[in-house]
Amino acid sequence: MGKQLNIGLLGMGVVGSGVCQVLAEQKEAILARTGVSVQITKALASPYEDKSALAAKYGFALTNEANELFEDETIDVIVELIGKIDPAKAFISAALENKKHVVTANKDLIATHGPELLAIAEKAGVSLYYEASVGGGIPILRTLSTHYLPDTITGIFGIVNGTTNYMLTKMTEVGMTYEDALSQAQAKGFAESDPTNDVDGIDAAYKMVILTKFAFGKTIHVADVATKGIRGLAVADIKQAQAFGYEVKLIGAAQKTVDGSLTVSVGPVLVPKNHALATIQNEFNGIFIESEGIDQSMVYGPGAGSRPTATSVVADLTVLAKNKSFGIVEPFLTFEKETALASVEEVPSRHYVSFSSQEIKGNALPEWFAFEQTVFNEADQRIAGITNPMSEKELTEKLATYTDAQDIQIMKVMEE
Amino acid sequence: MGKQLNIGLLGMGVVGSGVCQVLAEQKEAILARTGVSVQITKALASPYEDKSALAAKYGFALTNEANELFEDETIDVIVELIGKIDPAKAFISAALENKKHVVTANKDLIATHGPELLAIAEKAGVSLYYEASVGGGIPILRTLSTHYLPDTITGIFGIVNGTTNYMLTKMTEVGMTYEDALSQAQAKGFAESDPTNDVDGIDAAYKMVILTKFAFGKTIHVADVATKGIRGLAVADIKQAQAFGYEVKLIGAAQKTVDGSLTVSVGPVLVPKNHALATIQNEFNGIFIESEGIDQSMVYGPGAGSRPTATSVVADLTVLAKNKSFGIVEPFLTFEKETALASVEEVPSRHYVSFSSQEIKGNALPEWFAFEQTVFNEADQRIAGITNPMSEKELTEKLATYTDAQDIQIMKVMEE
Repeated sequence: MGKQLNIGLLGMGVVGSGVCQVLAEQKEAILARTGVSVQITKALASPYEDKSALAAKYGFALTNEANELFEDETIDVIVELIGKIDPAKAFISAALENKKHVVTANKDLIATHGPELLAIAEKAGVSLYYEASVGGGIPILRTLSTHYLPDTITGIFGIVNGTTNYMLTKMTEVGMTYEDALSQAQAKGFAESDPTNDVDGIDAAYKMVILTKFAFGKTIHVADVATKGIRGLAVADIKQAQAFGYEVKLIGAAQKTVDGSLTVSVGPVLVPKNHALATIQNEFNGIFIESEGIDQSMVYGPGAGSRPTATSVVADLTVLAKNKSFGIVEPFLTFEKETALASVEEVPSRHYVSFSSQEIKGNALPEWFAFEQTVFNEADQRIAGITNPMSEKELTEKLATYTDAQDIQIMKVMEE
Repeated sequence: MGKQLNIGLLGMGVVGSGVCQVLAEQKEAILARTGVSVQITKALASPYEDKSALAAKYGFALTNEANELFEDETIDVIVELIGKIDPAKAFISAALENKKHVVTANKDLIATHGPELLAIAEKAGVSLYYEASVGGGIPILRTLSTHYLPDTITGIFGIVNGTTNYMLTKMTEVGMTYEDALSQAQAKGFAESDPTNDVDGIDAAYKMVILTKFAFGKTIHVADVATKGIRGLAVADIKQAQAFGYEVKLIGAAQKTVDGSLTVSVGPVLVPKNHALATIQNEFNGIFIESEGIDQSMVYGPGAGSRPTATSVVADLTVLAKNKSFGIVEPFLTFEKETALASVEEVPSRHYVSFSSQEIKGNALPEWFAFEQTVFNEADQRIAGITNPMSEKELTEKLATYTDAQDIQIMKVMEE
């Protein structure tokens, strides 16, 4: 009998049932290519729903006791797809301490408690993989840790939240309002009933915490990410940005400054229409990498969804199968590098600005606007323009001397 | 003393000297993350140029005898960057037989003699890696063999030749003629003095042979790829395609047909403007993957150039360093799957067609044109249109009944 990799499953929702299906379909291919048979043998029963039909269909046992999974000596890997911090953190800790490898898609948990969990994994001599936690089905974390290992990344920019990109696409393409776009995203199942994490950029910030570790070797916390969302963004500003030659995208960015420090931010950004990130539509994600060796590259794909995310989870399981066939344990290869964090608000950039023209203090437009890209919109009595390069801090101070408007919209402009 | 991975280098041209530089810059990072020190210790002297300055700068020895590299017991890996079939094939065979791992960027050789060389590697218990042979700096082959292992790919479509994409970009953006675009590509160093392999699609066909193996487990030969190039493509047809809502791109495509067989082709294709491949400019490459699990995804980056390609070569070396630290030998994980090849000319598709209107046999336009996308261009007296779906074979027969024009241009139309 050949080698086996037995899985204990936590979470049988959208992604969890997708993992059951993908594994069943790909079991033979994985066995043929790795020499290891991978199967779910036991799962934690759901307190919300009877999962006995799923268990019967895919041939695994159910238990009401999570510990029964962690203490089962025949189980090699725990797949955690419950999400959120509690009880996922306690479950993963217990699994790792019981020398089970863990595969998870839990970005909140990894971004918040990743170092602690990785330390437990290292001590126990097992692997903690989480490819699906960033970019859904997109191959990004293992690619960064392998292909980009002998490269020096200088910037990583991503559309890493599918919900907001879907909303922005609808607002851009058919002029849908923010509220209608949000309702439609919720109807499509992209946004949860409480969409705060998506629209306020928090979900994207979690992902930038993880990407910053892989790209720059820097452990940061979600509080270190200067985070803005798209809540209340006006279609008029999106249309004006388009007239200036840009698409508005919610961009997570971790970037080296000229003095070698690092800024990490999430916010709506004007992306030049001919930039690869500008063309990414609907719920798709894209992660753009600038580096000394490869120069400019991007990976693109579905940022969410049952099958893509499940396939990414199964890709992690396949690596564990390969490792088992070789008799090795290999962590995600990240690194530690001392890098100072800088405030993105102090880094000069061009900015898109719009505000009510009624509240202007002076007669003439100040010289810090790029005149060829500044307009007065008669319909809604607003001035919209693109500034010359300055820090957001400086811009805010200058604006205060020029207008008393309370409805100022500021967005960074990405250079080509 | 820690572990070492010593390299014997064949080829110190643009990519070879790039490898020297990238390795020197990244040596410490690779050591820190893999525990293995990677260095070039000896290189085959160039018959064309004195390379002693390069050897002195990077601290390796030169030899006039290739066998001295293959028989050197302190050398672990041979990096082959000479290109073409001879003498690269004999060198790589000898290296593998002497139990040296081999890393190469040689697409011609891998596409032509890959199976034979991989068999030698397997017998000798060493690895043959060639990530840089497709897509320059883009992470594609290892990504296919890892992340897409538990997925079923149904189509892989790529802009895999930087020279022709650069030419098409210039012809599209500034209306440059084919001849001028070729001259400029040559001046930029993208196209060689004999540009046949690029403009006739042969280079792209080599890459599709390699991609077809990774995506579908099917070993094919370059003669199996239905190959057309862009030689003599008229700017008028590019402009007309744009008016219809498309960009003309040289696309390599390997695709499952409805009956489960496989077509592999290279040729100019009308790509919808909102498709990710349509936005790829200049010498950049992009490889778009359709699969059952991940759905639609793409990797994008520089398809050529010294540093990107060298970084890809060093990424292979880094994997060999990791393997050495674990004491394992791992081949590129490909697979074998029985799949019939079908002729792309027999698969129905919409087509762009243009021809001299003087040679028309009938009065009315036949019903197999999509009428809303057919125009008469008075300036050059040509009809240009998009047909309803039919095989290229059927289209050619129909056209023969309708026009005697000798200057018919036919290009496939990619569906959205």
